[in-house]
Amino acid sequence: MNLTTDVLAGKRLSLARLLTHIENGTPEGRAALDELFPHTGRAHLIGITGAPGTGKSSLVNQLARFYRQPVNGSAPRKVAVVAVDPSSPFTGGAVLGDRIRMRDLAGDPGVFIRSMASRGALGGIAIATAGVVQAFDAAGYEVILIETVGAGQAEVDIARLAHTTLVVEAPGLGDDIQAIKAGILEIADILVVNKADRPGVENTERALKNMLQLAHPTRRVFHHHGQVMTVKAPPAPQADGKLWIPPVLRTVATEGEGIASLTEQIARHGAFLRETGDWNRRERVRLQNELDTLLQAALVARWRATLPNGRYGEILERLVARELSPRQAVEALLAASSSRNP
Amino acid sequence: MNLTTDVLAGKRLSLARLLTHIENGTPEGRAALDELFPHTGRAHLIGITGAPGTGKSSLVNQLARFYRQPVNGSAPRKVAVVAVDPSSPFTGGAVLGDRIRMRDLAGDPGVFIRSMASRGALGGIAIATAGVVQAFDAAGYEVILIETVGAGQAEVDIARLAHTTLVVEAPGLGDDIQAIKAGILEIADILVVNKADRPGVENTERALKNMLQLAHPTRRVFHHHGQVMTVKAPPAPQADGKLWIPPVLRTVATEGEGIASLTEQIARHGAFLRETGDWNRRERVRLQNELDTLLQAALVARWRATLPNGRYGEILERLVARELSPRQAVEALLAASSSRNP
Repeated sequence: MNLTTDVLAGKRLSLARLLTHIENGTPEGRAALDELFPHTGRAHLIGITGAPGTGKSSLVNQLARFYRQPVNGSAPRKVAVVAVDPSSPFTGGAVLGDRIRMRDLAGDPGVFIRSMASRGALGGIAIATAGVVQAFDAAGYEVILIETVGAGQAEVDIARLAHTTLVVEAPGLGDDIQAIKAGILEIADILVVNKADRPGVENTERALKNMLQLAHPTRRVFHHHGQVMTVKAPPAPQADGKLWIPPVLRTVATEGEGIASLTEQIARHGAFLRETGDWNRRERVRLQNELDTLLQAALVARWRATLPNGRYGEILERLVARELSPRQAVEALLAASSSRNP
Repeated sequence: MNLTTDVLAGKRLSLARLLTHIENGTPEGRAALDELFPHTGRAHLIGITGAPGTGKSSLVNQLARFYRQPVNGSAPRKVAVVAVDPSSPFTGGAVLGDRIRMRDLAGDPGVFIRSMASRGALGGIAIATAGVVQAFDAAGYEVILIETVGAGQAEVDIARLAHTTLVVEAPGLGDDIQAIKAGILEIADILVVNKADRPGVENTERALKNMLQLAHPTRRVFHHHGQVMTVKAPPAPQADGKLWIPPVLRTVATEGEGIASLTEQIARHGAFLRETGDWNRRERVRLQNELDTLLQAALVARWRATLPNGRYGEILERLVARELSPRQAVEALLAASSSRNP
């Protein structure tokens, strides 16, 4: 009966229904998330990002398979895959391909795959993704793979959801692929050169190592989960002085090559985060980001309710007529609402 | 003396100084933009987007060169290039490559090139880009080429600044490049298959045409400048019933091939927008987007000022301890501030 209870009891259909509620931002979804929230915080969130053409989906597929194998007699872990496509605000069809590719996993009750497309709202995809991840976490999924298509700001925002972020590259993707790396490299905990059976793999690997060296001679791992504005500040010394140097690994995801080593590095990074206290620091920054985004949306909604009818339209017309600059229009709007509750 | 007057008089150094003010969000920058705003609205804004590796920068370079040639005895147009990299919130170094590649244009006083990286603020890059574009427009730059690196939501936001949006593809960029197209295609006014001397160009061209066909059998051009949420609604019939079918063009930017045809299509699209009234509709939606983004930032700032000291930190702690869900934390924060001015 109760959605929350059913999700906590591991009912798959209830979870699917909840995810739809969360994506659509319904009151039911919000209420369930409130109830589920105390049960979150157990999963290892793994972000997978990188340019198109690098084979991210195959890699995610292989990782999911790997985690479903029993290791050393322990039970296989429950795995959720969240495939997010922020570049597709319109159709929502873009991640269909991934879904199809993952069909071979779909029969496994220990794997849950969810594709998400942006609904266009400011911060909407990040908020919805955070909610979906919380639902999986509460439902007992121990490994949550968050895959993003593309490599823009939205991907960086989503990568911030993860404890461990993989940045995937591939040999021979052209010249200006170098350009995109500068930013994206800084969010990488682990660098993966996929399609490593292709010519040019040494070059790609060398370029990545050089860029890592150049970008962060004394880089600290939790930087990218801190305030973006303060990222350039020199890292504060840590009690135990431990540093995480992002390893560069080769994989051929279509053949399953290199996947075992990759999962070892992921486990090693998880252990590192817990040892150094970075795990909790990342959790805190992640929750604060979510809080700020939700807060912003709530403030706008509350403010709109105080605005006299038709006032917004009037001021917009004056802006379009270039009688007011955008900033002057904002001031006029703020004045229009504050005159009601001074 | 006065920055605005100097910019309007075409002084290049003053313009450069103004752009820095705008990027840094200084009061001087804001004041100047207010004064310059009535002088805007004359430029043709051309957005260029697409995945990394497609050769966007070379294409932009060639377009700029082309517009600098006198055509049919008319004077060459003043051209501004704004290269935006929203995927680089950290270093700001990612667009350096573009800058270097455009060095051969840099001696031309009729060309102004500006590289921008995200400063990390929510909507910050879009707002700063809007300001920079307004400054160029007021300063008499008739063609403004807005190039984005990457292909995520931020790029879509920036593409919305333009009157005419080019989406650039290239043959053989891998499988899941197909995935990214679904979303990005819908913002394309003109599709460019660059690097058309490479094998596989026919396949890429055919795939694009098929996707266009599938995605928008009766597509209307100004959709993507409308509210994203309503994009799926069937288009309202237009008085003259005119439709823009995005053409698919081949170029080899490094050789200058196909550039003349491309500029013809850009001119044809500009004329189409003016004939159908879509030019003004796009202007309106663009200004409204900018207004809403600025408004949101202003509301948050105003609200923060009303919050009792230390309250934010307290509530954040309860969130981190999982005593409050993110949404409950927002409610607690709103209650904390509204109790002051009920």
